[in-house]
Amino acid sequence: MTDHDIRLGDNQYGKAETRLVRVDRHDDRHEVTDLNVSTALAGDLAATHLTGDNAGVLPTDTQKNTVFAFARDGISSIEAFALRLARHFVDATPTIHRARVRIEQYSWARVADHSFVRDSGTRTTTVTYDGTAATVVSGVDDLVVMNTTGSEFHGFHSDRYTTLPETHDRILATAVRADWRHASAADTDWNTSHREAARHLVEAFADTHSLSLQQTLHAMGERVLRHREELAEVRLSLPNKHHFLVDLSPFELDNPGEVFFAADRPYGLIEGGVVRDGAPDPGLAWW
Amino acid sequence: MTDHDIRLGDNQYGKAETRLVRVDRHDDRHEVTDLNVSTALAGDLAATHLTGDNAGVLPTDTQKNTVFAFARDGISSIEAFALRLARHFVDATPTIHRARVRIEQYSWARVADHSFVRDSGTRTTTVTYDGTAATVVSGVDDLVVMNTTGSEFHGFHSDRYTTLPETHDRILATAVRADWRHASAADTDWNTSHREAARHLVEAFADTHSLSLQQTLHAMGERVLRHREELAEVRLSLPNKHHFLVDLSPFELDNPGEVFFAADRPYGLIEGGVVRDGAPDPGLAWW
Amino acid sequence: MTDHDIRLGDNQYGKAETRLVRVDRHDDRHEVTDLNVSTALAGDLAATHLTGDNAGVLPTDTQKNTVFAFARDGISSIEAFALRLARHFVDATPTIHRARVRIEQYSWARVADHSFVRDSGTRTTTVTYDGTAATVVSGVDDLVVMNTTGSEFHGFHSDRYTTLPETHDRILATAVRADWRHASAADTDWNTSHREAARHLVEAFADTHSLSLQQTLHAMGERVLRHREELAEVRLSLPNKHHFLVDLSPFELDNPGEVFFAADRPYGLIEGGVVRDGAPDPGLAWW
Amino acid sequence: MTDHDIRLGDNQYGKAETRLVRVDRHDDRHEVTDLNVSTALAGDLAATHLTGDNAGVLPTDTQKNTVFAFARDGISSIEAFALRLARHFVDATPTIHRARVRIEQYSWARVADHSFVRDSGTRTTTVTYDGTAATVVSGVDDLVVMNTTGSEFHGFHSDRYTTLPETHDRILATAVRADWRHASAADTDWNTSHREAARHLVEAFADTHSLSLQQTLHAMGERVLRHREELAEVRLSLPNKHHFLVDLSPFELDNPGEVFFAADRPYGLIEGGVVRDGAPDPGLAWW
Repeated sequence: MTDHDIRLGDNQYGKAETRLVRVDRHDDRHEVTDLNVSTALAGDLAATHLTGDNAGVLPTDTQKNTVFAFARDGISSIEAFALRLARHFVDATPTIHRARVRIEQYSWARVADHSFVRDSGTRTTTVTYDGTAATVVSGVDDLVVMNTTGSEFHGFHSDRYTTLPETHDRILATAVRADWRHASAADTDWNTSHREAARHLVEAFADTHSLSLQQTLHAMGERVLRHREELAEVRLSLPNKHHFLVDLSPFELDNPGEVFFAADRPYGLIEGGVVRDGAPDPGLAWW
Repeated sequence: MTDHDIRLGDNQYGKAETRLVRVDRHDDRHEVTDLNVSTALAGDLAATHLTGDNAGVLPTDTQKNTVFAFARDGISSIEAFALRLARHFVDATPTIHRARVRIEQYSWARVADHSFVRDSGTRTTTVTYDGTAATVVSGVDDLVVMNTTGSEFHGFHSDRYTTLPETHDRILATAVRADWRHASAADTDWNTSHREAARHLVEAFADTHSLSLQQTLHAMGERVLRHREELAEVRLSLPNKHHFLVDLSPFELDNPGEVFFAADRPYGLIEGGVVRDGAPDPGLAWW
Repeated sequence: MTDHDIRLGDNQYGKAETRLVRVDRHDDRHEVTDLNVSTALAGDLAATHLTGDNAGVLPTDTQKNTVFAFARDGISSIEAFALRLARHFVDATPTIHRARVRIEQYSWARVADHSFVRDSGTRTTTVTYDGTAATVVSGVDDLVVMNTTGSEFHGFHSDRYTTLPETHDRILATAVRADWRHASAADTDWNTSHREAARHLVEAFADTHSLSLQQTLHAMGERVLRHREELAEVRLSLPNKHHFLVDLSPFELDNPGEVFFAADRPYGLIEGGVVRDGAPDPGLAWW
Repeated sequence: MTDHDIRLGDNQYGKAETRLVRVDRHDDRHEVTDLNVSTALAGDLAATHLTGDNAGVLPTDTQKNTVFAFARDGISSIEAFALRLARHFVDATPTIHRARVRIEQYSWARVADHSFVRDSGTRTTTVTYDGTAATVVSGVDDLVVMNTTGSEFHGFHSDRYTTLPETHDRILATAVRADWRHASAADTDWNTSHREAARHLVEAFADTHSLSLQQTLHAMGERVLRHREELAEVRLSLPNKHHFLVDLSPFELDNPGEVFFAADRPYGLIEGGVVRDGAPDPGLAWW
């Protein structure tokens, strides 16, 4: 039992990273849905923390079972599947007042009717439901992109610790994590929405003549909101994967933007978002 | 330029994972400080996002340089070093209004006067400064602990998807991430505070007869607050590293709690915190 | 100095994982070559081991510089680049009698003239040169493929520890590492050879009705040799990425090959090769 | 069926990375043995490769079951456990003529009678048995060590690509992988042998004034052979974890060996071994 002067803070619990693969067996060809599902529940859970009374705890093992059982009915999109799971956990369990479901979906390219090659890129969703309202965030993770020109960086603030030379032509490369919030959790064509948002993201990266990675970040988020009216907000996290031009002068060679060293660490990290004016309150969308 | 109906959201930028090793060369023996430093700045940064005007941007390269230059003066603790860096970035840069500095410190055990072996465990800090007030969070990451008995799990809520049997004796293992918030950023003996908080954390894990990992989590946080009055709050994230008793009956063998399969995924994930009543407002401490 | 009864064994040294990105700037569009280059040299190196006399040691830093300098001249294929490097290190350094160069190449898909998205799949080569002869091994790594049907496993040997049921329809998934040895190091169209070998590998995986992963492995290697007469041998390492059909019967659901749990560990690991009769001796090709 | 001109090459198959934790429950305190076990079998396996006839295949699932079942009897050392497994697979399965068992053991430090903290360092063994003779290799992996002084590097061979300055005082750091071969597989005190060999390895690293990492490597191997007469050979793989002195002169600061940048890639990689004269033939020991 806790003392009267120390109290339980925010908490949640769940089953992380249930690796679920679903095969849709149509007559002539199969479809594959390859997911990593994490569920997290919150509610009246003081008893288990304070005394180990678990009467209000739906086991994480049960959460995993539910993920597998619900998959039996088909998975039209990760957003719809996460919404169904989140609503179930809250609506069916008296002690649970909030559910968050995070799903990562891995890509497979078709080789033949029943054969696939794993593709790059991860599609994501995070759904939060509190018994009344649901929020849906969709996104991508580890989408690695590069522009070999069209990127500059100059005119920055200098202090006594600044040694970086200005550049008017550099490689710009990043591993995009982007999350976009839907204005509504009502049924929509989640798959088309995702495909188009991801396409605009990549196209904005490619199209933007960049004076800073921040400018590129903003252009990417803005492009998505401009084209997808169902979305209210975009957040991006962009590591600046530095490519340093190698100094070949000791070997009596020039290097006109051709030979680069791709560094691991440290790296710049640019984080930011864009929001549509009048967007609905995010509520619990961002965690 | 952004349209009038889409606006810039929260943002920050910095240099992540600057790998700094400092050697203190005393006459007879050396000391090693092995750090991974990440800095993130926020402020008047709309121009770089909207037009690529970088006049307000202190380059991430400069942030890295500053980390190395400040290290020349010595590092008494990661908390003091992070405070110095955070205050510098905000106080010395007109456009920067907030700095967050996250440092991970790796452990080395001494073998001889100038020789060391890398130890397990990571000490962490996150300092946030907004030009007026600083918050200091200290912690540990990837501290892997195991109790081979003294853990039960039963009496939980069941629904139609529940198949988990109750258990009265199981292995309890987790990789602790814990963060504790200091009530004040005023100078203190950060090293003693950290060592003692980490010790109480581990001892509470070992001592607690556990009816749920949530109960253990609470006991760990409470123990720290009980013994360290300089701390206001503890937050923990505890993956339940499942160890399943192997069914040896097909081989006509019993298994009285001896042979376990250590599973990778999925895993339970228990997150929660404890707060001291009357603790100062966290402000920007948690990000 | 070593005692007379303990002698130096095999040894080599080099620079591992030089991350080199080369941009070919044609008028209208750029090409990207993204490599991870590792060099390893062997020769008269007893002195540095026994006494620290480094007169025969070409520094690993110099090896890295050479990689960058040679890249200035262009990289037509990783095989040709590795051959040039290996021959240089041996032919230009009196003490060095053997060079091994391993290169991994990462894939980028074009989005626009100067913009790319990182693709899955890694192309590899290992070239060994001993001053007289060179061997060239090409390959792929982490090529993840899946058949959702057309895989069986039954009729296996059983003993008292066997509990596995036979199956006549399972998912077969693996992350292919394959290495194929060229019969000759003479100039050839390395890029076409690689593209075609990789294509046959994937097609054989997709086409083969599999009674064991060993059978699939053999079919993949044989298919490559059958179609590419410039190759003498193929070696494969295939982890069996198990997908277990989930038992949904506790929830009164059937599961006709639709819902699977994708397990991490343990995993089967099948390793083997095929060799063309009369193939030239591998010499130092496999390390 | 393979064509007459393409034949099956070397092959083996098995179950990789079975994660086994064994608890020895003594009255007053428990002991933990935390293992990662990989088995690989070879023999008359042409049929499964060529036609999918699996009559000679002991399933990898059975291999895993055997690991768990044998653990029921206790594990005195990883070497003894691997020997028992390897001999069983070959002696009990007519088609299997060779077994290789690789075990990694993770360290746990005691906190209380039933409580442990995961320690750094991995103990390893690789046992190979062909029905007649067994070889035993023991070792360590990922043992990260650092000397903050007592390391020089100069007098090396220079060519036109050499820019590295000579140094007379540098940090020397590496992540040791070492494997030592026992002269005999006969019963011995495997635990004492391992503890002492690992101790000599670390002490030699700390004691050796190093003129090259090759010299340190040789000293480490030689020290082990010198003190452990049961061992015939030592092989080491030592990545040179570069620590670059940071140039602080742009900030009008000196840097007398105090502030270093710990680089990730590229890194030197030094591989080599020492052998006792008259050591028994290694046979299949090294794979």
